Amino acid sequence: MFIGFFIAQQNPNPIWQASRYIPFSHPKDFESRIQILKKLLSPEGDGQNCDKISMDPDDLRNHGFSENDHFPEMLPNAVVYPTSTWDVQLIVLWAQASEIPITVYSGGTSLEGQYRPACHPRGICIDMCNMDKIIEIHEDDSDLVCQPGARWMDINETLKEKGIPLFFPLDPAPGATIGGMFSTGCSGTNAVRYGTAKGEWFINATVVLASGHVIKTRSRARKSAAGFDLTKLFIGAEGTLGIVTEVTIRLAPVLPTTVAVVQFPNVQKATEAATAALNTGVGIQCVELVDDVFIGAINKYGMSKQKYPVADSLFFKFQGATAASLADTATVVKRVVEEHGGTGFQLARTQEEAEELWSDRKNAHYAGLALAPGAQGWPTDVCVPVSNLPQLVYETKKDIADAGMLSTIIGHVGDGNFHALILFKTEEEKVKARELVSRMVRRAIALDGTCTGEHGVGLGKKEYLIEELGHNTVAVMNMIKETLDPKCILNPGKVSTCFSSVILRKY
Amino acid sequence: MFIGFFIAQQNPNPIWQASRYIPFSHPKDFESRIQILKKLLSPEGDGQNCDKISMDPDDLRNHGFSENDHFPEMLPNAVVYPTSTWDVQLIVLWAQASEIPITVYSGGTSLEGQYRPACHPRGICIDMCNMDKIIEIHEDDSDLVCQPGARWMDINETLKEKGIPLFFPLDPAPGATIGGMFSTGCSGTNAVRYGTAKGEWFINATVVLASGHVIKTRSRARKSAAGFDLTKLFIGAEGTLGIVTEVTIRLAPVLPTTVAVVQFPNVQKATEAATAALNTGVGIQCVELVDDVFIGAINKYGMSKQKYPVADSLFFKFQGATAASLADTATVVKRVVEEHGGTGFQLARTQEEAEELWSDRKNAHYAGLALAPGAQGWPTDVCVPVSNLPQLVYETKKDIADAGMLSTIIGHVGDGNFHALILFKTEEEKVKARELVSRMVRRAIALDGTCTGEHGVGLGKKEYLIEELGHNTVAVMNMIKETLDPKCILNPGKVSTCFSSVILRKY
Repeated sequence: MFIGFFIAQQNPNPIWQASRYIPFSHPKDFESRIQILKKLLSPEGDGQNCDKISMDPDDLRNHGFSENDHFPEMLPNAVVYPTSTWDVQLIVLWAQASEIPITVYSGGTSLEGQYRPACHPRGICIDMCNMDKIIEIHEDDSDLVCQPGARWMDINETLKEKGIPLFFPLDPAPGATIGGMFSTGCSGTNAVRYGTAKGEWFINATVVLASGHVIKTRSRARKSAAGFDLTKLFIGAEGTLGIVTEVTIRLAPVLPTTVAVVQFPNVQKATEAATAALNTGVGIQCVELVDDVFIGAINKYGMSKQKYPVADSLFFKFQGATAASLADTATVVKRVVEEHGGTGFQLARTQEEAEELWSDRKNAHYAGLALAPGAQGWPTDVCVPVSNLPQLVYETKKDIADAGMLSTIIGHVGDGNFHALILFKTEEEKVKARELVSRMVRRAIALDGTCTGEHGVGLGKKEYLIEELGHNTVAVMNMIKETLDPKCILNPGKVSTCFSSVILRKY
Repeated sequence: MFIGFFIAQQNPNPIWQASRYIPFSHPKDFESRIQILKKLLSPEGDGQNCDKISMDPDDLRNHGFSENDHFPEMLPNAVVYPTSTWDVQLIVLWAQASEIPITVYSGGTSLEGQYRPACHPRGICIDMCNMDKIIEIHEDDSDLVCQPGARWMDINETLKEKGIPLFFPLDPAPGATIGGMFSTGCSGTNAVRYGTAKGEWFINATVVLASGHVIKTRSRARKSAAGFDLTKLFIGAEGTLGIVTEVTIRLAPVLPTTVAVVQFPNVQKATEAATAALNTGVGIQCVELVDDVFIGAINKYGMSKQKYPVADSLFFKFQGATAASLADTATVVKRVVEEHGGTGFQLARTQEEAEELWSDRKNAHYAGLALAPGAQGWPTDVCVPVSNLPQLVYETKKDIADAGMLSTIIGHVGDGNFHALILFKTEEEKVKARELVSRMVRRAIALDGTCTGEHGVGLGKKEYLIEELGHNTVAVMNMIKETLDPKCILNPGKVSTCFSSVILRKY
């Protein structure tokens, strides 16, 4: 482990550069191992009619490259498609015996390279797309049991179709799956009202450990104080401590919502207004900060029905059980934001208009990219105590402008979580983007904040963990990893963990 | 560890019976060790003027016995009063070198024997009463940094006195401290609206590990995805994985509230009404189920200004940012509960009346005891998916009646969490109480529930962990314990852990 760590420290771009030094040197051995896995996963145990393993080049590429991030292509040696917890147990036992690393893929929406197989041998990718079922809906308990490949938007759509007035309130990227959301410890725009994946939305999880053993972390009771909170141990562990194969999620009542937009003279005023509005305790489901560059991008992108005044702005989503309380909230928020310099408060007049306004905010990624056609985006996020957000945004915007680069900025301002999408076309600009991200992270850490509020660590934020948390804290993470996955076969090289000791030893 | 486990399995009353087999055999050695600790903690390092160590018999008794639970007296060998993280580090390093176990004490309100030194040697008790300061209040960030000995009620009182309209919304026993709430993973009546200690109210913690190293689990940002969620690892670990010496807690805006009470024909109807009311999404802060026996106890206790109709009832606390939304909530809830058979809906007419009604609910413990003067109470809690609560309550009440015993029943019905206070006077009745609890727990587990929703495991619920979670899950807990505290000096014998391996080895 020490060697991998040493290598990682020497390179600004540590993971895939380091991987060059540890070549995958057993392709034939791998071939014969795959034949064994085929037998394990075939219906008759003879390796025939096994449709759960793919080595098709397109399939490999789809699991080791993403248009949405800036990481290079890293292709797994094979993609495996389990359909049950038992399948996953077989795969893990096979991988353990073969000393072949495993990376899990589901929605493919993570932004920090979480599902890139960053080690050598690349090993296998487990794709959860065939484990995407809703298993049980307990309407009376406001919970639901599902497999990790189920997408949150599909779950909410299914509940709606069945006439069940409940929903799962975590809202990261549209394609995200429950397993990915669990493993990333995701949040999204609704976190202001509902909290994050690290809160109490995941009631329990069934997890296959690196040893091949299966555990269920908790009962289905909404609360439990029965021992260490193992559910939380796996939430946000990015698949490095176990592979989740089933989860129980808690649901919330669907409430009527509406949307409002308001402009401010600067980010400072907007942040103060957001805090003041939240502190009134009225029904605010979301409050999103967008900067003038973002508004320019939305206006230019052309998907919006209206042109917004180009200014730092807040998008609010209000919720209320009754029409009266919804109207009440809008009145209170309008008054508060105007006291803090807000102008042009626009409240949606119809449900359709509310959806249009909100989709303008939700088009952030593609609208941002549209600012510079042909450019790639480097998406990143940091998070600071809310009152430090204006300084962070001000200094970061200045830094980006000074570097001659272009970036939109949006923030889950209620949580102090702030996203940039830095655009680049050339290698030189990519280096500048990397440096901008690095300075942004260090600025956030200096302001009592974190290198990532919700995107996770993956490959992209590994180098900042010790700076943010100190050696001791990261050492505890590594001790837990070492305890639960001593051969480091589960997503090696991610979060705080370095390369697998076994891989360093063997190859 | 295996031997301790074996012993524990053989005894219905495992911990203190098992402890007889492992006598404390080094009293003289302990004396000389204490002299060293005195030097470490004295101002000049010479052991003079050290007021941080007590071996006074009354002091020992105050830290090893409680009127509020049914566990026998277990007295520590000394009580130590640190005033800083550095003091705690010194104590831990001393204990580690001396192989002396440590149990931490703060509010003394835990109900499952969490702070009883259940091993031999009993070892030292660390009392956090001198680490009870609020260190920083960040009003703009809605958070606050404090020491573990600070009491939640004092914190809320301080905020009120300073005119800061924020509060910490977890509300366990009145005397509970932040450190105890953190370590128990507490909740309380507000959990319906605000979630529990396992949610997102603890932003970070400074923890002294068994190795003497200090870690800070996270930055002060409200959200972070920077690595494993170590804050959550220590929440609910009952001091077995580390000693928390500082925490950052999140605060919520204080909102106007009011209270209502309504009667039902039975628990089934009351539970359905509570769920239906919560699903409307109106501002319900608390919803508490009490049974007819409890109402009888309240009426008899004589602290109430009114006599309630003796029936299974719900106590609601409503919250709303505006008078209009508060009134709106009351109207909606009245309609919904009446649709589910609720009668006599009584809404407090004044703030004073609201406080009186609520204090009747809050007097549960002493009102319950007053039912049978001279009796002791065996308080316990279990939790099941909400829809299973009526069956659990029905069968448990029948079981209690069949056993000829007396118990009040209250439930945080929004969470499916249910408390009994079984009264006993004689040893024979105590045995019956133990058997009733045991059957109640097994009933809860069979109904997809947990042996404890919020009281924690301590000594009282250890024997049910494997039954509830399975061997593998408990093994993972033990592996983590072993990793972070290999000599098992931190609160040995609690939660899933057996006696310290070192203690078994040495004594």
